[in-house]
Amino acid sequence: MPAISPLLWCSLRVHQVFGANTDVGKTVLSSILCRASSKVWPQEPTAYLKPVSTGPDNEADHRFQKNCVLPSKVGRWKLNTFVASHIGKYTTGVSHKTLFQYDQAVSPHIAAKGKKPPSDEELLGTIYYHASQRVTTGFGWLFIETAGGVHSPGPSGSTQADLYRPLRSPVVLIGDSKLGGISLTVSAYESLRIRGYDIESVLMFQDAEYGNAEYLTEYFDRQHGVTVTAVPQPPPRIPENDEEAMLEYYDQTSHSSPVREVLEHLDDRHRTRVQALESMASEAHEKIWYPFTQQKLLKPDDIVAMDSALGSYLQTLKPKSQAPVNSSEPLLQPSFDGSASWWTQGLGHANLSLTMAAAYAAGRYGHVMFAGAIHEPALTLAKMLLEGLQNPRLSRVFFSDNGSTGMEVAVKMALRAARVRYGWSPDTKVEIVGLSGAYHGDTMGVMDCAEPNIYNEKVEWYEGKGVWLSYPTVQCIKGRWRIRVPDTMDSGSGEDREFRYLHDVFDLESRRARGDHRPYERYILNTLRDEVRKGRKFGALVIEPVVLGAGGMLLVDPLFQQTLTKVVRETPNLFGPDTQPHNRDEKSWTGLPVVFDEVFTGLYRLGRFAASSFLGVYPDISVHAKLLTGGLIPLCTTLASESIFQAFASDDKSDALLHGHSYTAHPIGCQVAVESLKQMLQMEKRGDWEWAIQMGKAQAGGDTGRTQAGSHVWSIWPPDVVEWISQQDGRIGGVWALGSVLAVRMRARDGGGYKSTAAEGVRDRLLQGTGGNDGRRWNVHSRVLGDVLYLMGSHKTTEDEVAEVADLLCKALQH
Amino acid sequence: MPAISPLLWCSLRVHQVFGANTDVGKTVLSSILCRASSKVWPQEPTAYLKPVSTGPDNEADHRFQKNCVLPSKVGRWKLNTFVASHIGKYTTGVSHKTLFQYDQAVSPHIAAKGKKPPSDEELLGTIYYHASQRVTTGFGWLFIETAGGVHSPGPSGSTQADLYRPLRSPVVLIGDSKLGGISLTVSAYESLRIRGYDIESVLMFQDAEYGNAEYLTEYFDRQHGVTVTAVPQPPPRIPENDEEAMLEYYDQTSHSSPVREVLEHLDDRHRTRVQALESMASEAHEKIWYPFTQQKLLKPDDIVAMDSALGSYLQTLKPKSQAPVNSSEPLLQPSFDGSASWWTQGLGHANLSLTMAAAYAAGRYGHVMFAGAIHEPALTLAKMLLEGLQNPRLSRVFFSDNGSTGMEVAVKMALRAARVRYGWSPDTKVEIVGLSGAYHGDTMGVMDCAEPNIYNEKVEWYEGKGVWLSYPTVQCIKGRWRIRVPDTMDSGSGEDREFRYLHDVFDLESRRARGDHRPYERYILNTLRDEVRKGRKFGALVIEPVVLGAGGMLLVDPLFQQTLTKVVRETPNLFGPDTQPHNRDEKSWTGLPVVFDEVFTGLYRLGRFAASSFLGVYPDISVHAKLLTGGLIPLCTTLASESIFQAFASDDKSDALLHGHSYTAHPIGCQVAVESLKQMLQMEKRGDWEWAIQMGKAQAGGDTGRTQAGSHVWSIWPPDVVEWISQQDGRIGGVWALGSVLAVRMRARDGGGYKSTAAEGVRDRLLQGTGGNDGRRWNVHSRVLGDVLYLMGSHKTTEDEVAEVADLLCKALQH
Repeated sequence: MPAISPLLWCSLRVHQVFGANTDVGKTVLSSILCRASSKVWPQEPTAYLKPVSTGPDNEADHRFQKNCVLPSKVGRWKLNTFVASHIGKYTTGVSHKTLFQYDQAVSPHIAAKGKKPPSDEELLGTIYYHASQRVTTGFGWLFIETAGGVHSPGPSGSTQADLYRPLRSPVVLIGDSKLGGISLTVSAYESLRIRGYDIESVLMFQDAEYGNAEYLTEYFDRQHGVTVTAVPQPPPRIPENDEEAMLEYYDQTSHSSPVREVLEHLDDRHRTRVQALESMASEAHEKIWYPFTQQKLLKPDDIVAMDSALGSYLQTLKPKSQAPVNSSEPLLQPSFDGSASWWTQGLGHANLSLTMAAAYAAGRYGHVMFAGAIHEPALTLAKMLLEGLQNPRLSRVFFSDNGSTGMEVAVKMALRAARVRYGWSPDTKVEIVGLSGAYHGDTMGVMDCAEPNIYNEKVEWYEGKGVWLSYPTVQCIKGRWRIRVPDTMDSGSGEDREFRYLHDVFDLESRRARGDHRPYERYILNTLRDEVRKGRKFGALVIEPVVLGAGGMLLVDPLFQQTLTKVVRETPNLFGPDTQPHNRDEKSWTGLPVVFDEVFTGLYRLGRFAASSFLGVYPDISVHAKLLTGGLIPLCTTLASESIFQAFASDDKSDALLHGHSYTAHPIGCQVAVESLKQMLQMEKRGDWEWAIQMGKAQAGGDTGRTQAGSHVWSIWPPDVVEWISQQDGRIGGVWALGSVLAVRMRARDGGGYKSTAAEGVRDRLLQGTGGNDGRRWNVHSRVLGDVLYLMGSHKTTEDEVAEVADLLCKALQH
Repeated sequence: MPAISPLLWCSLRVHQVFGANTDVGKTVLSSILCRASSKVWPQEPTAYLKPVSTGPDNEADHRFQKNCVLPSKVGRWKLNTFVASHIGKYTTGVSHKTLFQYDQAVSPHIAAKGKKPPSDEELLGTIYYHASQRVTTGFGWLFIETAGGVHSPGPSGSTQADLYRPLRSPVVLIGDSKLGGISLTVSAYESLRIRGYDIESVLMFQDAEYGNAEYLTEYFDRQHGVTVTAVPQPPPRIPENDEEAMLEYYDQTSHSSPVREVLEHLDDRHRTRVQALESMASEAHEKIWYPFTQQKLLKPDDIVAMDSALGSYLQTLKPKSQAPVNSSEPLLQPSFDGSASWWTQGLGHANLSLTMAAAYAAGRYGHVMFAGAIHEPALTLAKMLLEGLQNPRLSRVFFSDNGSTGMEVAVKMALRAARVRYGWSPDTKVEIVGLSGAYHGDTMGVMDCAEPNIYNEKVEWYEGKGVWLSYPTVQCIKGRWRIRVPDTMDSGSGEDREFRYLHDVFDLESRRARGDHRPYERYILNTLRDEVRKGRKFGALVIEPVVLGAGGMLLVDPLFQQTLTKVVRETPNLFGPDTQPHNRDEKSWTGLPVVFDEVFTGLYRLGRFAASSFLGVYPDISVHAKLLTGGLIPLCTTLASESIFQAFASDDKSDALLHGHSYTAHPIGCQVAVESLKQMLQMEKRGDWEWAIQMGKAQAGGDTGRTQAGSHVWSIWPPDVVEWISQQDGRIGGVWALGSVLAVRMRARDGGGYKSTAAEGVRDRLLQGTGGNDGRRWNVHSRVLGDVLYLMGSHKTTEDEVAEVADLLCKALQH
């Protein structure tokens, strides 16, 4: 999707006229609106735009007058228009233009065949340019008439409703007054609505025979709260006197009070939209309690007002600092969603397939009870996850609502399994083995799975329940991938290791063969033995594989996490005498139940379905959320092995996992997740990320010898950009990129960490964006974690988009 | 919505033929399908059904042969059909029938004017009866042709797509091959899909000029994975030789391999659907980890397989015990959703307005970042809640994903506010004041807000952090509303009180005037003073107002909860010296922050927007989930007063409420919630529950003197049913009904409580349902809480539905 800005100015009321079908009178009714608006607001120019017109310029089109405009180049979009037409006859004083005219009276995608049709981006750019030319400091109207019905294909083949989504113009829907027209009008409305269009008015011809307007008036009022306005039909065509009859018709209809009321309604809604956008931030400042925000330090101007979102972009109100100085400047701009909306986005904003999946499940089920019941989306999702993760241990899927609740479930599962296995009484204090700086969510149970930190230190009931291991991290510094071993890990491994390519860091087999894991092993064993000797009891190993997210976007040496898992599993009696009888097959847990929190790192965020695959070890419990629904709605799954599951089996009801949420396995979430996983699996199979994989290989000169995506580490962020950033060592502490994540650690003069403000400058410069004040201006909305600035794309973010954003980032870093 | 069963038999493949528009060839293409199926499966009878036909029986309809059938009475549906027609000519051997024939060639809702059109329920019943007559022990086909386009109104005015939803028949969509037909076909598909239809095939005429089939083949394959099949157009009409030409056309097309492939696909999909439904339970038994379930005691046969849901009914596979003994018995039955799908349902399953709200937000935003941002649905929802609750204290809305997380947030808010106010250090052990048996969710933080119980006693990290007060409960016993004061509350109030009407229990003003609250006051004050004297520190009063849900559906004496709130607020220095300076206006909290967990009881579950309004006191923090989205998807809001909010204000980022979820304020949830609240407010204003309110007044003989809904307590469960149940004192411990909830406590011989099985017999008898094995069979899916059986409707459950369910309940109780 192009990063085009919606057509929104304070002074120009832009509306799109869609038809419930072809030949329903779009042009006639548009002309009536144009005439009426120039009557009611004589000081405010009215314009009509037909972006694409097909069919000869004849009677049927009510005599458009052609008016040639030479091809020109406007901004970044080439204006390949060759003909533009004007309606002049019936609407004096109204400017009329056609941008692309085709002779054949068929769908534009056919008419345009062999004529190099404009791309959607070109077409939208041309429209944007045209509209912006209509903007004056005074007020005005612009009606844009689409071609055919709502889903008639445009020149590129995209249907009207898909093509024009980025413009976000309010819609006048022309209903169909003919036999069957009720059906077409209702369906057209629905097709627009599920694409986020605001249909402000339904306008149609009266017809006594079928009474469509009568039915639709009641229907739209009851079902959608939208007013239907019926206008008399044009007079029958009289060859000798058509012009006069039409003029009289136009005169009467455009002076009628129903038409005037439509325009007043449109005017009112436009004003309301602009006012709502402009007041949203200050209202929110008063009424919303924001997550993770010190609101005393938050000014209304810091709050981003969002109009909508599409693809990789949020459509945001320009901040006051760059706000329109007068009503003729555009109000909105595209903002690259640089945090992937808190790490959730996978398939782009407002992805139609996900919308359809959600709507289908809503239409088939709504929400239904899950305890003791089953429905298709939940079962299908469970099967897809079990298959996709390729972890032979996992056999069971538990549903909850988000990563935090899913991790609570995981911890409950693991602790019980360990307690039963080791024969500890229910009141034994059982803790977890975790990593320093880990984060697993905000509910109190999983807060206790994190060492004391900024997120929890002031929370009244917080009580860290674990031992927190140190670990080596990986960053690119001055073009080299460096593994930094922390000082606390004083087991003779103190020196840093360097690699030319990130691939080599992930080549665990070779590194193990070289014995790189030995010092890790010693450190882990010594630490755990010491703690157990002190009498502590541990019931789970809980880690975020590969990357610690909220803890500061730390790329952990995968060899360390692999070694940790192996040590925990393979050291007999490390955590206690193994007293209770249990299965000893290879799928059953040993040592401790291993919990992988893949809420952030799994499902392709790092480029692979399972983050555990980077480590070459299989967890006993695996938690998946965020990208699970492609970034649409909350849903979480906690997968577990049969040996965990069996720890809850008993003849006593109260031994069960007595955990559940009302919306457990809600069908909409499950159906959307099924669709998301299907799409992501298809994209991988189809090679949609081949451009990114090839970038990595090209940089490595092909010398890594890894050719399959599955065994490769890759990122959408170009290696040369990562390398360039890593060289800015005056400002940069280090950088890494993997999958769709890029993390840049700034050199902090304030000590770093979550409280640091070191990355805020870069974030603010990204928010400033490309500058300028026209429709081509865009910016980047990003988040910082203390001294770390990160950028995150979706899996649909294109090579071009990444390049543009990376370019802006490099400029911001140089500033 | 009628409790009609979907048209699903193992042996009969039923398909509905919908048209993208009127006049797209539905009848011709249906005839081709009919001919072809009787060719390919000559041993299996094919039938064609046109439920409603308009227009004279002439050439245009390809010569239907009329065949009169006398009106008859079939089961509960009156067969008011006056004419039924047969197509015979072109499809020998195929049974053809029209159920309702109108002469005028207009939309059925017009044609039927003045003719007493059948209601939707009658029409569906007639179709069901007809279909069931086609079922034999062998296999067969039935094609049901709809009228006009997907949204053409049927006789009652409902559109085809809405009317036929309960049948859940897979769809053959006839595409439109004419100019504009691409748009109509795509839109028609979308309108069906968002209503939960499975469109198995798109069938249409070829047309070289517009190439619609070509475009649509690619489009449907890419976008929806559906195959489009194009069939040659019928020959041009030749008056003298039309019949022969048509016969030849039908011969050729119905023998063609594309048509045969369509049928094979339909056959395959039918089999897959039946198999999937039949295997779902055993697959789920192997792969799903169920919430709140001792799975060792769960057999695959206990798992309910759901096909879909609509209105008040789930559509479920008949349990094995009542399963079809042969392939000619219906597979599905409507199950009244007696637990309101775990207390979530408010506006009925698959409510179209909620679907549209969800789809609109998905199409406009997908999900967008909320920290530091704002969008329209979130702001609108925040404003609606602040206004609707009519609690002058509340000023801020925090968003999370479900009741449990929302309560975690509430507790974090309250404890911090108290700690700051009382000047306690961060490591002070601060507890809550709660009620015995309370339940606030399953995440560990809120589990700690409940006294030790069956839900938490075996959870490893559970540690109850509070004092748990006893309280009096209310039940109807032998026709009297009795307030039972527990023995533990030994403050001189030991004797039970009785009232004739539940209204009188809720008349707190009169009861206070009589001094009924004095014993409560003494008990509360003494208990709290004792605990504080022991050195305990309290930071919040946390209660579920009016009803304790998961704790056993306990109706608490509202006067007790009112008194508790007042004592906590109005007793100076009860919880500590009030050392820190703070606002003392009437909106600021005193004593303790008061948290109302209205997750279950709020938003009209008990008949009112705010459950707190029953108590006449305003909480400082109020939590709302479940019904918030009308029962569609998870979303929660925690509302707080400014005096709570300000406790987190500081120049230090880390003093903020560092809590947040990735999908915080997800636009879909917010938009759906806005729509739900709007609908519920409208229903209240419009008096949609007047039938229920009047039932209560009628029973009370109008002597309560309360006429406004707002000051009235009412229930959808009839007072005479409640009274009748209360009289069955050999089996019943007590009963109450309020709003949409009915709770029946069985006399338990096993001691009662959560582990009791006393209510399971009634639940099982409700699940047995009405008996019989035809399309009129239905049952009730309900849940028990130990010895309590409860039933819960949605706010759209009708008087008739309630009456039927109550009838079945009474029978089950008598058993």
